[in-house]
Parts: sequence; structure tokens; C-alpha cells
Amino acid sequence: MAQITKRSEDYSRWYQDVIAAAEMAENSPVRGCMVIRPNGYAIWENIQRTLDDKFKELGHVNAYFPLLIPKSFLAKEAQHVEGFAKECAIVTHHRLKQVTVNGKVDLIPDPESKLEEEYIIRPTSETIIWDQYRKWIQSYRDLPLLINQWANVMRWEMRTRMFLRTTEFLWQEGHTAHATAEEGRAETLQMLEVYRWFAEDILAMPVITGAKSESERFAGAQETYSIEAMMQDKKALQAATSHDLGQNFAKAFDVKYQNAEGKVEFVWATSWGMSTRIMGALIMTHSDDDGLVLPPRIAGTKAVIIPIWRKDEEMVEVVAAAEKIAAELRPIVGAIHVDKRDNMRPGWKYAEWERKGVPLRMEIGPRDLKDDQVMMAARHDRNKQAVKIVDLVTAVPAELERIQQDLFDRAKQRLVDATVEIDTWDDFTKLFQGDGGFAHCHWCGDAACEQAIQDKTKVTIRNIPFERDETEGECVHCGNKSIGRVLFSQSY
Amino acid sequence: MAQITKRSEDYSRWYQDVIAAAEMAENSPVRGCMVIRPNGYAIWENIQRTLDDKFKELGHVNAYFPLLIPKSFLAKEAQHVEGFAKECAIVTHHRLKQVTVNGKVDLIPDPESKLEEEYIIRPTSETIIWDQYRKWIQSYRDLPLLINQWANVMRWEMRTRMFLRTTEFLWQEGHTAHATAEEGRAETLQMLEVYRWFAEDILAMPVITGAKSESERFAGAQETYSIEAMMQDKKALQAATSHDLGQNFAKAFDVKYQNAEGKVEFVWATSWGMSTRIMGALIMTHSDDDGLVLPPRIAGTKAVIIPIWRKDEEMVEVVAAAEKIAAELRPIVGAIHVDKRDNMRPGWKYAEWERKGVPLRMEIGPRDLKDDQVMMAARHDRNKQAVKIVDLVTAVPAELERIQQDLFDRAKQRLVDATVEIDTWDDFTKLFQGDGGFAHCHWCGDAACEQAIQDKTKVTIRNIPFERDETEGECVHCGNKSIGRVLFSQSY
Repeated sequence: MAQITKRSEDYSRWYQDVIAAAEMAENSPVRGCMVIRPNGYAIWENIQRTLDDKFKELGHVNAYFPLLIPKSFLAKEAQHVEGFAKECAIVTHHRLKQVTVNGKVDLIPDPESKLEEEYIIRPTSETIIWDQYRKWIQSYRDLPLLINQWANVMRWEMRTRMFLRTTEFLWQEGHTAHATAEEGRAETLQMLEVYRWFAEDILAMPVITGAKSESERFAGAQETYSIEAMMQDKKALQAATSHDLGQNFAKAFDVKYQNAEGKVEFVWATSWGMSTRIMGALIMTHSDDDGLVLPPRIAGTKAVIIPIWRKDEEMVEVVAAAEKIAAELRPIVGAIHVDKRDNMRPGWKYAEWERKGVPLRMEIGPRDLKDDQVMMAARHDRNKQAVKIVDLVTAVPAELERIQQDLFDRAKQRLVDATVEIDTWDDFTKLFQGDGGFAHCHWCGDAACEQAIQDKTKVTIRNIPFERDETEGECVHCGNKSIGRVLFSQSY
Repeated sequence: MAQITKRSEDYSRWYQDVIAAAEMAENSPVRGCMVIRPNGYAIWENIQRTLDDKFKELGHVNAYFPLLIPKSFLAKEAQHVEGFAKECAIVTHHRLKQVTVNGKVDLIPDPESKLEEEYIIRPTSETIIWDQYRKWIQSYRDLPLLINQWANVMRWEMRTRMFLRTTEFLWQEGHTAHATAEEGRAETLQMLEVYRWFAEDILAMPVITGAKSESERFAGAQETYSIEAMMQDKKALQAATSHDLGQNFAKAFDVKYQNAEGKVEFVWATSWGMSTRIMGALIMTHSDDDGLVLPPRIAGTKAVIIPIWRKDEEMVEVVAAAEKIAAELRPIVGAIHVDKRDNMRPGWKYAEWERKGVPLRMEIGPRDLKDDQVMMAARHDRNKQAVKIVDLVTAVPAELERIQQDLFDRAKQRLVDATVEIDTWDDFTKLFQGDGGFAHCHWCGDAACEQAIQDKTKVTIRNIPFERDETEGECVHCGNKSIGRVLFSQSY
């Protein structure tokens, strides 16, 4: 059985061990790319379904745009090319040719298949999408245009880490067009709120919502908003972003519309995304030294039932009882697995399902059956209780609800406990040389000062929280005037 | 309003017009790649959901493997490299660099970012997946391994056509591993049967199931099976394939397992796929000169309700009635749209929804309302009837069911009518110089003869049908001995 390093020993190793032990993902032979294994992908499917339903409820539709982007498109928006040209996969040829070098057969890109214009694999799709929107938008009647895409994207990252930063990753990217600046702003904030809801209510992951500082904005955005979560090592993780793109992309791709008064204007844009990175955040928020812990609302399997027997003649009876319970519970709580493997001891099964993060376990043996009960154990806090079989239809949903709430409360308490207000540079450096955490500090608003802080301490402004102290003060680093506190932390 | 060319005038132009008029897809600035617009993508989402549910019901799980494949992987299976090296997108660099050439700023692949080993964008994922399976399979207890992937793939096709043949396309690819040849064969055939069920029962598209001839097999397969549908121009379209890969990939990637007796053996493999190509087949099977026709089981919107009013005071009442009907029907039949646009005449709305292929239309005006009825019109045969509102909960599902069955029956009749047995080369050439169709003919089994037939007539063996005449005869082309008839046709 795969060993899991303790968090206290080596946090980073623990993270990798949890992923390996739950068989969620593993490295691939392709630089910086991972393989998402079925146990991991099932969680991604739940994330997709939940978000997709919400997007559609709010009037969005899905579409699909090309994987490749003509090189020249990237250059059309000045900040955008700055942001993405440095880390992209470039397609230059379209055929492999067999050659023999020193008696060895090799495949090389056929020089005759060199492309006239190179393509890059999309790092994000604003450019290719806005080039198309020009054809779709003429009148105010075509607006708002509310499109989302589920896709793979690629950024040639130098240092990668499973889920958190991979060369290829999966995500959704929303790209909307609006008639007014106000509508664009409202959409940007609405989608940020969707992400907050998803993080907090579904993933049980408390977040801080706010605006990014100018230097941390998306390449081409007028304003970028983020949700920031705290991991168990007290570092921040940016879990999703929503961008108010103003008219930047409309101007770069010449997308205009005629308003109701017949006047022609550039349209207003937003984009917003959440990626497989969120799964790294999910793992680091709830898991423990025994492996993965999943909130019930996002777990693929909500509960596992383990029938226990010694003699063969007991098997038939306990397995049948387990199957009957599972069949009754599935319409109420979702996927339930009955683990009937007969070549494995119950203790091993418990440990395996714990490593895989299944929120609830039920054990049923011959004696339980005689007493018309099962033993029910929660994954995250080991809360164990005997429950009458007849009561399971209410007890199981109630326990899953308790688990969901408890995971959120626990994470919220951790966030609160590790959040401080800091007013001096001395305290600031002490905090981040020590345990770290979230620090609300005054900042002068100057990008050079922000950069200096990062260079000295690796600490960045995570965002300018919507809920913040806006009394005046002095910048924690340079002492200049500040109009309110911002959120500092080390981050993933 | 977009004009649609008649099928009888220009079939190929008609196909493009139908896609454009329904706003399903359009060409993109990326060579051979299309943009799938929301109306098209909604159908793909229904295809995904229906197939995915069926795959899972049969024990398959989803996973995700890298987009890029190391060049050297392709070479590991001899036939595979033959099949795919000639039309692939090759990634050679990972950074763009700004240069100034003749005073003009340009972006070029940075020579310093040249990759040590080039990657190709997956044309299919056997190699990257089997390289991973080696780590996952040790014992018979790890088998069968039943994994499916939903992904984009890329093949650098020279001549492309929307949905039917595009450089990038979306698909699912199943990749399974088994302990015995028999289990592999059974899986291959089971998945072919899933595709047949999906084509016939969901898409209302009758198909011929059978094995491909040796020369048409998937690169690396021992046996390839296909479902072949007939389009309205009597050409065949291969709508899905299922491959028995034998031990070819297990040997190429050294994937062995220990059986229950402790003996180490190579595992047996299958792969099977259906792609966005099926949407081209769907369009060409049912649509007419007025635009798209969709079978209810795959249509995104099952029915549209069009409230009709002249005076403003009528509007409130008819719209409210339409909304009430829609709300009552949705739980029973699925998505229903109420078209309340007030700047468009009903006739225009009818034509628009016809072009978009919505199977059923309901009209409700003030007089209908007084009579407690709606007018209900089927898209495909214009069948129109007045239905009492109180009866809609039974009449609408019944009419949708009739439409589904009628579309299948119509397509089946077309297939039967255009299928012949042909015994002489003279009749063979006459048929395919004329109207074409499906021809069951004797064939000697020789690949050279098969190639000669194709060179002379562009006609290929679509498959060797499971249900075929197996009496002996003489090859329709060379006159040599044949042990049974095979299916010939021109094809997409």
C-alpha cells in the first residue's frame, strides 16, 4: 500500500503522495503534462456538470473554437502578446518524414511541410474567439453574447506541479460581449460570484473575493477579479478569475455594433475561467495524513458500503443486505459503492477508501444484520455511530450534510485563525519568515513598491478584497499614504 | 434570411447552406478547422451525454491523457506510424520571440526554445495511453481496464469539409485492456453494437454493421468493424469504428500481466470511437431543402411555442398561455422554447425554427386560446393538427415519438430502395456512373483487386456485413472465386 508522507514532515511530498494514493493523477512522458486518472477525472466531471448547469441557468451556451491560433492573432492585443508569447507550444510543420541517420531510422519534421504561418496551441482563446465575434455581432439585438467553452489549453510552464501548474490543463473559459460598460462589469462580477458560490457551497472552500492589483491583471484586461483560498500550509491559491476586458479586444479585432439609436460602437467584453487547478486546491484544503478528503457535494462516490463476513454462507446474506441498502440510498444521495471483493480484509478496504476520500463508510456484518443496523463512519473526523437500517434514508443524507458543513467550518476557522492585520515591515517579514498566513496591510498603490515586497519576501498582493478596511494608513513597506488594506500572502 | 440551395441543384452546396442557416458551425481562420457554434455544440452535448451514460452503464470510466505525443512513441507500432506520420501537427518550439525584419516587428519561434524531441498533437491516443497502461497493469486483477476519453484530436487533412473531415475534431476514444483474446473480441463487438444502437435508436439513422476489409483497417488493428450509413445522395458514411487491436499495442509498449496461474502474458486491446463527423451524417440523413431536420431524441430543443398576437393587449395573454404550456411539458419531453420576440412576424419565426431543425412547433393565438387549443406542426412532414391544450401532455410526447419513428422509417426505406445486388462489372460501372447506392457484390478477397476497383470507379468496400449472402460466386471485378458478398459504395 502506498505510504503517505505526513504534512508536518514534508508538505509538498504529502500533496504528491495523496494524489498518488488516491490514484487521481500521475506524471506523463510529456514535459509538464499529467495524466488524469479515472478517480481524478470523476471529480472533474462533477465540477464540469455543476458549473455547466449554473452557467446555463444564467443564460450561457457552450461552443467550441479551434485549438490552434495563428501566430499573428496573438500580436493584435499588445498586452496579450506580452503575457503569452513567452510560454507557448508552437506548431511549425504538418508531416513527419522517415530519414536514416548513421544507419538508424528516425522521424523528422518534413522540411517541405513547413507552415507558412506558425500556429500556437491556445494558452487562452480571447483572440480566436473575438476574431469570430466580429462576424456574429452587428446590432444591439445580437447582444449580450454569452458563450462558454470547455477546452484544453497549454502554457509552457518551466516549473510544474500536478493540478496546480501543468503545461496542459483543462478549463472552462467564458467569453461574453455586451452593449455597455455597465453590463460588462455586471457580468464580470456575476461570474466571480458564481465561482465564490462554487468554491464555498460545493467545494467547502472559503475564499476571499476581490480585485487584482494592476500588475497582476490578465494580459489585456481592464480589471481582474479573483477568489483566493487558503491552503493548509497557509499559502494562498488563486482558484478562479473573472476579467472585465473593457473594449480592448473589441478594438483589437474590430468588433462593433449598432445601438438602438443607430450609432456604431465597440462592444464590451468579459472573460472568466476555472481550471483543473481547482482540484489541487480541493486536495490541499481538506485532505489529511491518511489521504484524500472530499466534500460530499463534489465526491464522485458519496458513500461506500463494506459487507463483512467470515464464513462463505454469511457472505450471500450481508452482500444482499448491502446491495439493498445501496439501491435504496442511491436515488436520495447519489453514487454508492458496495465493495464485495472477497480477496481483501475489511481493514484494508477501509484504508483504501479513506485514501480515496469517500466521505462516508458503512460497515455491515452478520451481527449488525441481526440487530438491523450498520456502523457508519465519516471520513474526515472518524465520527462513528450505529444506525438502524430503517433510519438510513434520513441518517445518511443528514450525515453527508454535516460533513459538508463541518469541512467548510473547519477550513473557515483555519482561514480566520491564520489571518492578521499587520502594520509594520518588521512584523510583516517576521510573519512570512515564520508560519505565514493572510495579512491585511496598508499599501501605497505603487507597482514598484509591490514588486519590491515580492522580491524581498516572495509575498504578493493576492487581491484587494471587496470587504476591506478602507480607513487611511501608511504602506507597510514604504510608509507612503494608503487608502485601505489589501490582502498579502505567499501563494501557489 | 440565409438562402438554402436545393439538394437537386447542388448537394454539396446544400449541405453547407443547411449548416450555415442553422448556425451550427462555420469555417475558422485556422486551416481546415471549424468553429462549432452554440446550435451545433448543443447537439454534440446531447451526443456526449447519451453515449457517456451508456459507456458508464457498461462499466467504463473516463480519464484524460496528454494532448501531445512524443514523436518517438508514434514509431513504436509499425503500422501506426505509417498511418499517422503523414498528416500530423508537429510542435517544435516553446517560445515566440519578437524580431524586427526590414523595420517591421514580427514574431518568430525562438531558436533557443527548440525542443529536444518534437511532439505531435494526438491524431489518436493509443501510443500515449498504452505507455501509461504498462504502469497500471500487472495482474489479472487489474483487468479488464475499461477507459474512455473525450478529447480533441488533429489530423492534417488536405481536403476538409465541415463536420465530415476537419483538421481538428472532437471525439471519444475508448481504450480497453483484457486478459484474453475472446474478451477483447467481445468488447470490440459490444461497442460496435452500442454505436449501432446510438445511430439507429437515437439518431434515427439506419446502418450496416460489419468488418472492414484488411486494407481499410485502423493502423495497428487486427480487425476493424464499422457502422455504415447511407446519405441522401446515396453515398456511404462511416459513422463509427471499433477495433480489435489484438496484442499489437501491448507488445509495442510491453504491457504484460500475470494470470491466475502465475503465467505472464501480453494483454489484449480494443479501441473504439465516434466523432463530430457523426453530426455531418445526422445533417445529411434527415435534412431537406428548408434546412436542418433533427430527430427528437437528439434535438437540443424538442419543441418551440410561438405565441401570436396583433394587439398589445393580446400579447400578455398568449405569452402567459405559451409559458404555462411550456412549463407543463418540459418535465415530460425536455427543452421547450417560447419565442416571444416582438419585433418579428410569426411567418419569419416559423422559417427560422424550421431552418434550425426543431422537431415540433406549436402556435397559439387569441382565437386558439378561446378554443383552448394550439396548432401543432411537425418539422419533417409538415403534419399539422389542432390539439386541445388539456391533451398536450399526451399528444406532444406521442407526436415526438411518431416523428422519431418516421424519420427512421423514411431513412430505412431510402436505404432499402437504393441497395442492390450486382453480379457483373458492366452493371457495377453503370450503377456508379449513374445514381449510385449500396451494392452487395461478390469479391475475391484480394487487396489489389479492391484497389483496382477503387482506382477505376472511386467505389470502395464499405464493410463485410455481418448479415450477408455467403453463397459462393465470382468476383464482380476479376471473376475469381468469392465466398460471399461485401458492401460496395462511394463514400464520404
